[in-house]
Amino acid sequence: MGRRYDTVSLLTDYGLVDEFVGVVKAVIHDIAPHAHTIDLSHNIAPFDVRAGSLALARCVSYLPSGVVLGVVDPGVGGGRKSIAIEVADGEAVFVGPDNGLLAPAIAMAGGAGRAVILSNEDYQLQSHGATFAGRDIFAPVVGHLCNGVDLAEFGPLIDPDELLPGMVPLPREEAEGLVGEVLWVDHFGNCQLNVGPDEIADWGTQVMVSFGDSQRVATRQHTFGDVGTGAVGLVVDSCGMLALVLDQRSASSDLGIGPGDQITLTPLTDGPAEGVTSPVSLRAR
Amino acid sequence: MGRRYDTVSLLTDYGLVDEFVGVVKAVIHDIAPHAHTIDLSHNIAPFDVRAGSLALARCVSYLPSGVVLGVVDPGVGGGRKSIAIEVADGEAVFVGPDNGLLAPAIAMAGGAGRAVILSNEDYQLQSHGATFAGRDIFAPVVGHLCNGVDLAEFGPLIDPDELLPGMVPLPREEAEGLVGEVLWVDHFGNCQLNVGPDEIADWGTQVMVSFGDSQRVATRQHTFGDVGTGAVGLVVDSCGMLALVLDQRSASSDLGIGPGDQITLTPLTDGPAEGVTSPVSLRAR
Amino acid sequence: MGRRYDTVSLLTDYGLVDEFVGVVKAVIHDIAPHAHTIDLSHNIAPFDVRAGSLALARCVSYLPSGVVLGVVDPGVGGGRKSIAIEVADGEAVFVGPDNGLLAPAIAMAGGAGRAVILSNEDYQLQSHGATFAGRDIFAPVVGHLCNGVDLAEFGPLIDPDELLPGMVPLPREEAEGLVGEVLWVDHFGNCQLNVGPDEIADWGTQVMVSFGDSQRVATRQHTFGDVGTGAVGLVVDSCGMLALVLDQRSASSDLGIGPGDQITLTPLTDGPAEGVTSPVSLRAR
Repeated sequence: MGRRYDTVSLLTDYGLVDEFVGVVKAVIHDIAPHAHTIDLSHNIAPFDVRAGSLALARCVSYLPSGVVLGVVDPGVGGGRKSIAIEVADGEAVFVGPDNGLLAPAIAMAGGAGRAVILSNEDYQLQSHGATFAGRDIFAPVVGHLCNGVDLAEFGPLIDPDELLPGMVPLPREEAEGLVGEVLWVDHFGNCQLNVGPDEIADWGTQVMVSFGDSQRVATRQHTFGDVGTGAVGLVVDSCGMLALVLDQRSASSDLGIGPGDQITLTPLTDGPAEGVTSPVSLRAR
Repeated sequence: MGRRYDTVSLLTDYGLVDEFVGVVKAVIHDIAPHAHTIDLSHNIAPFDVRAGSLALARCVSYLPSGVVLGVVDPGVGGGRKSIAIEVADGEAVFVGPDNGLLAPAIAMAGGAGRAVILSNEDYQLQSHGATFAGRDIFAPVVGHLCNGVDLAEFGPLIDPDELLPGMVPLPREEAEGLVGEVLWVDHFGNCQLNVGPDEIADWGTQVMVSFGDSQRVATRQHTFGDVGTGAVGLVVDSCGMLALVLDQRSASSDLGIGPGDQITLTPLTDGPAEGVTSPVSLRAR
Repeated sequence: MGRRYDTVSLLTDYGLVDEFVGVVKAVIHDIAPHAHTIDLSHNIAPFDVRAGSLALARCVSYLPSGVVLGVVDPGVGGGRKSIAIEVADGEAVFVGPDNGLLAPAIAMAGGAGRAVILSNEDYQLQSHGATFAGRDIFAPVVGHLCNGVDLAEFGPLIDPDELLPGMVPLPREEAEGLVGEVLWVDHFGNCQLNVGPDEIADWGTQVMVSFGDSQRVATRQHTFGDVGTGAVGLVVDSCGMLALVLDQRSASSDLGIGPGDQITLTPLTDGPAEGVTSPVSLRAR
């Protein structure tokens, strides 16, 4: 027997209208009644593997030891593999489709240990159709993992290098400035960029933000309230990334930007540029 | 004392904006702290007893032993009965209004055993108004059932034949083909029909689908991915029923069909009709 | 050590799309694995402290002993205090921002006992940014409270009189009638008023309801079904307040009214005015 797990964290694009999430939990509970489930999100946009992978990566350092089930699975029932991957010497096991969904979170958790393809039908439900792997393949595997069934029982080991990597866009320095993109728009309309504060550490407090045909001056602040009514702020968000924000309003709606949109940041030479010795050297970054 | 229960499965049309679901769970937890709850759905469309009854029926074979609370209750506070019904020799007890909501699920679970009307006010909360039976009548009954109070304590036994049946539409064979309807549109826009694969088992791989003034050719496939971009597929879904689907798009939006819409299926004689001996005999079905 | 708690009730405006709620629960579970969580709502409108405070107040008499975490926090990271407040000799502890969100519920639970400012960083997470107090400040405090850490450990005691009060609008009697407002529109479109049934106890069964430029006659009824198709009803809702309702339809949509809208109630002298001795004295209220 392997290690037992008490906690299952769940992230899917199943939505909360149909009974899909409930049925997955019912199957897990039937097999492993001791397991406690934590819903991370079930409202990832349908089929949006990228959004799901980013959400999982944002969560991962806060999750308890246990099993993490991620299902955003446009290829369900088809050729893509169903997989389970240990991280951190078995502190956690990620379960889901091999389509890049789990990859960024696994990388943040220290990278893959043992990985298996979930092909052993003894640990799956007899199913109608091939459209609900969450219920028929993933949920029973999660339940049996919680009960201490060793990873190797679920199918053949696979080299993690053969699994599909995740795609995380990196910012790049170009002549016009630091070119990044919106990674995520949260419930409040805050727009997380793929740019960390270190990348603009020696810039001034004001930053030119260009997107589409528009330009806005954003002020670097600590809190939403510091931004001031109507102004655009650039704050360090709860993941440690820069985010474009407004105070008590949606930056996404106000600026007309969303996930994947390109954003160019340029330091402003007017006004006090704290800790900067030369505007020229700044522009050259 | 009766049998104790550890698990409560919940389905309502309460939505997840107000505190209704939380208060129901709080009342159950206060009475039976050991009970574990599983949310099946709380986003059944308001007052849509039919949609709720179908969702419960889709779930029922996956639910753990325990209590199942269903509340879609347009007649709350009025003349309709509040009921609890045992199934499978007490493996589960269904609780809810007597309006047909529970009937299809109970039928799938093997039919009703003992049934009672929930009239004993000793197991109800003192209430303001008569608008929240979920909190004041059903939740305390569920909690006391979990604690082992016998069904007969909650009120007089009633003959299950006196309870309101559920209505499940059946397909019918007519001159123009097999006439069914859309039972359910899921979160992804897949359109489940009230037609099983056995009913078209000897048809070819292509099926004419007629609805309103439109006709589309659907191809029978195993997975969404097999359907191919832009094409309409007819797959066996996770409940074992036929569903009209598109790959990574909403069939409901694309075809303009929704729950209750009439769909006529006709076998196509053109192309390979596998396992068919005579197109004429097919059309005559 | 203080008293241990087993149950945490949660109310936020975090929504259920992002992973915010899941991360808060993960942090609580990591610290206090024995704690059971109950979601009251996570769909309070963003920044709507008033709506959140009313929802908490509606719940409070049904919540089990334990910790109540409320987060609707437009001032997050800024000058507003983070607080924890005991009620009912420690039966429950409320945790959240000091912005009036918790005040009506605490008042309904008998008023504040000990109160502290959550300034002890030993019981907080190291955080990126200052935007997610739910995760970094409130969740760990909740977990440690569940584990029996005494309130006084989290920071200095504060006089509850120094905390921000909640604002609950009261109806007033004017020449044209009883002037109140819509406190809450629920999922079904029922419009709860800030008027209790005692305030119109001696009125007749029909009440003139004026709002904006419109007037409708509402009939006082016990249940939705009693109201009758198309008519406007005035029922005592599950909180014991008067609500404007329609049978199986949204009164909010039909009447075009929402939270905060002013509603004037006037007794109707036509028809049977039960228990009323003089229409004149009624109008004079």
